[in-house]
This record gives sequence, C-alpha cells and structure tokens, in this order.
Amino acid sequence: MAPAGYGNRVEGVHAVAAALAAGRVEKLYVEADRRDSVSDLLSKAEGVEIAIIDDARDMAETRAPQGIVAQCRAIMPVPLDSLATEKAAILALDHIEDPQNVGAMARSAVAAGVTGLLMSSRRAAPLSATAFKAAAGALERIPVAIVGSIPEALSRLEDRGVWVVGLDASGEQSLFGLDLLTESVAMVIGSEGSGIAPLTAKRCDVVVSIPMSGAVESLNASVSGALAAFEIMRVRSSHL
Amino acid sequence: MAPAGYGNRVEGVHAVAAALAAGRVEKLYVEADRRDSVSDLLSKAEGVEIAIIDDARDMAETRAPQGIVAQCRAIMPVPLDSLATEKAAILALDHIEDPQNVGAMARSAVAAGVTGLLMSSRRAAPLSATAFKAAAGALERIPVAIVGSIPEALSRLEDRGVWVVGLDASGEQSLFGLDLLTESVAMVIGSEGSGIAPLTAKRCDVVVSIPMSGAVESLNASVSGALAAFEIMRVRSSHL
Repeated sequence: MAPAGYGNRVEGVHAVAAALAAGRVEKLYVEADRRDSVSDLLSKAEGVEIAIIDDARDMAETRAPQGIVAQCRAIMPVPLDSLATEKAAILALDHIEDPQNVGAMARSAVAAGVTGLLMSSRRAAPLSATAFKAAAGALERIPVAIVGSIPEALSRLEDRGVWVVGLDASGEQSLFGLDLLTESVAMVIGSEGSGIAPLTAKRCDVVVSIPMSGAVESLNASVSGALAAFEIMRVRSSHL
Repeated sequence: MAPAGYGNRVEGVHAVAAALAAGRVEKLYVEADRRDSVSDLLSKAEGVEIAIIDDARDMAETRAPQGIVAQCRAIMPVPLDSLATEKAAILALDHIEDPQNVGAMARSAVAAGVTGLLMSSRRAAPLSATAFKAAAGALERIPVAIVGSIPEALSRLEDRGVWVVGLDASGEQSLFGLDLLTESVAMVIGSEGSGIAPLTAKRCDVVVSIPMSGAVESLNASVSGALAAFEIMRVRSSHL
C-alpha cells in the first residue's frame, strides 16, 4: 500500500501563504468579504483556481480559518531511513493526540533546526488543517516519517547509529546539558495524558526529564517538545 | 474602583480539581452521564452545591468542558508592588490575545518557579475558563498583578530594583545564558502578532531574542514564554 500523503487541506492566512510558497495549492476558497485583506496572498496565487464563498467556516476544519481555505497537493512522508543522517536531530512524537500540539511542535522544531519528525499513523493526531494552522508554515519545511510502530522505528534508527532519548517526567537525569545531544539523536516526546508508552520507553538509551521547581505535575506536550528541540541546539552550539 | 477578580468560571476535570483543592468552588454543574467518571472529583466537593445537567457544552465557554463546570469565588489579583521581591522572576505578558497562550504560559511559569505574572487589563485575553483549562491548575498557584498600563508597571518595578528584560525577535543578544537573569527580573513576552509594543520596549533594560536555526519567522508566544521561564531557572541554578 502506498503511504498516504498529508496536508491536502490548509486553512488560515499564514498556513495558506506557506502552502502557496511551496507550490502545493490547487484551489483556493476565499470569502467574498475578505478578498481585500488577502489580496497580497492572492497575488501569489497565479494559475490557482479561486472560488469565492460566503463563509469559510462552513467548510473549514479549524475554528478560525480567517476567510481562506486551500485545497492542496499532498506532501508525501519521507522514508524512515532518510531521517538517520549524520547529525540527525529527530523529534519522535509518541502518539500526541492534539493536532494543535503537533503543529506547535513542528513550528518549534523548524525554529530550533530539528532535522525531521517521526510520527505514528495510529492513535495520534493526523496532520490536519488544525495542525498546519498551528505550525504556521513549518510543516511545509520539515521532513516527516510516518510509521506503524514507533518502537520498531526507533530500533531501526538505532541500528543506523541514532541515539534514542526519551523525555518523560520519570527520567532521573536532566534534559538540560545532556552531552549525548551532540550525537545523532531522536528525542521521544510522550503523549499528553500518559507520557511515553512502555514499549517505546524500552527503546530509549536514556530517559531524561525537565527539572521543575514548582507544583505542577507536567508541562504541555508542545512546551516539552520545544524545550527538547532548543536543548539540542544549545548543547550542540556550546560544543562547537 | 475595586479591582475585579478572575477565575469565577472553571471548566474541565483538571482545572476544576485544582479549583476544588483551592477551596474556591461554590457550585458544580455535572453532566448526568459523567457522574461516574468524575466521582473522585465529586468526593472532594464536600459542602459544594451540585447541579446535574444534560450537556455541559450548553453552558461552557471552552470547547471540551469534559462534562464539568464550576462556578467559583474569584481569585483577587495581587498589588503590583508585591511582585517586586528580592529574587523576583516575573513574566510580563504584553497584551497576549489568546487565552490558551495565557493559560499555557501560567502552567510553564509555575513549573519553572516563576514568582508572579504581570498582565494588562486592556487589549489582552482575560483569565477566562479557556485560560484556566490550559493552565491545568497553575492559575490557582501563581500571584497575578493586573494593571492598566504595562509600561508604567514596568517603570514602577524598576524603581523597586527589578530589571526589565524584553524577549523579542529584534533582540540582538541571546536569551540563552543571560547573566542578568540571576538578578530580580521581569521578562516581557510580546503579543502573538506584533511582539513587544514600542512603549513597553522603551522600558526594557535589555532586549534579547531566542536564537533560531530554521526558517520560521517566530515562535508561538506560549513557547517563547516557556523558554524564557526555564532560562531564568537554568541561569540561576548554574550560578548556585
């Protein structure tokens, strides 16, 4: 079975502009009242079919499509092995359920120079219009591998020289300053409710946590992902 | 005019549990179908009036109230001067518009040991049920000062020995490793669209940015806030 693509539907000004820049947009649906406010964007849509509609919310998946919806050519996921580059910095999303969190993590990942995302095709948020909106263009720019089993994928990455670091409240070592991050790594971010799954945890070479001073039980998954992504960048730049 | 309180309305299992633990809940509205799943929570609601309802979404502000809505005694904001403690670590939210971002920042702030939040009463997201849900209990635990003018409030904090650090993409110095964070500081997080307002920027002793490797224009405000909060903690612990 050929792998399914993602990103067929993109909504909101920023996300649609990024899809246009990527040359993926096949058809644009624009609210009559918003034509003026998105005129910049429409000027970049040469050759794209445009349909004028009354209210984008009637067809939108996101709550605030900002008057614009794009039907796009899908982005294809990359083969898993292609993520195992020499200085890989992979974020592995272990069944993140909220598409806003997935999108927000993609945005932070691109900002921090993460080289690829690893996601599950099951029990996880799809790369929906909501994820694309939260990603603010970042999902156009980062390679994503989509696999049936995260633990198996991590094993395979390990075989190719990638260290696997789990980020979970149970970790005894601190994420901050972890020397291992100078190597090729995949950092596993657990799901919002239950953290890293037991089978996934078994694949981790080390499990680290974010030190907390205060009386909260956990961080938002997208915040954990951002701290992890930026920590890879920090540790690498301090070793230059 | 007496300052208005906040947090009269709290929705969702986690946020309601935190409001109950704080002893603020006056009345609970619980969906008939959910009574079993929230029985733990109800066992902690001794003396609280309980109303059984059909669908919490009919009265809820949040999209997914999880079958439970609490009407609460308000939390009162703290006086501005009380934030100017000896080792203050204040997050100043310069007109953050999305209540989910405000709540998420409160959650990260408490986790990182931030000592108080400074917010504007105008052109900013109110501390609504949506903010409380995203905060997952953190807004019960952190002092919040609410002011008419953020620039004036920052001036007053400066007079009391607090350094003001702006976090904005325009900052030439890096946030990471900023020695000033060992002092009493207020870190200003700009709004989602336009960053730090010009009048607020004038009040900053220094403006720093988050170094980015990748091709994104900006980070989500709640991610910037989390990176700032944890950086204060990191710099302080590395100087112990």
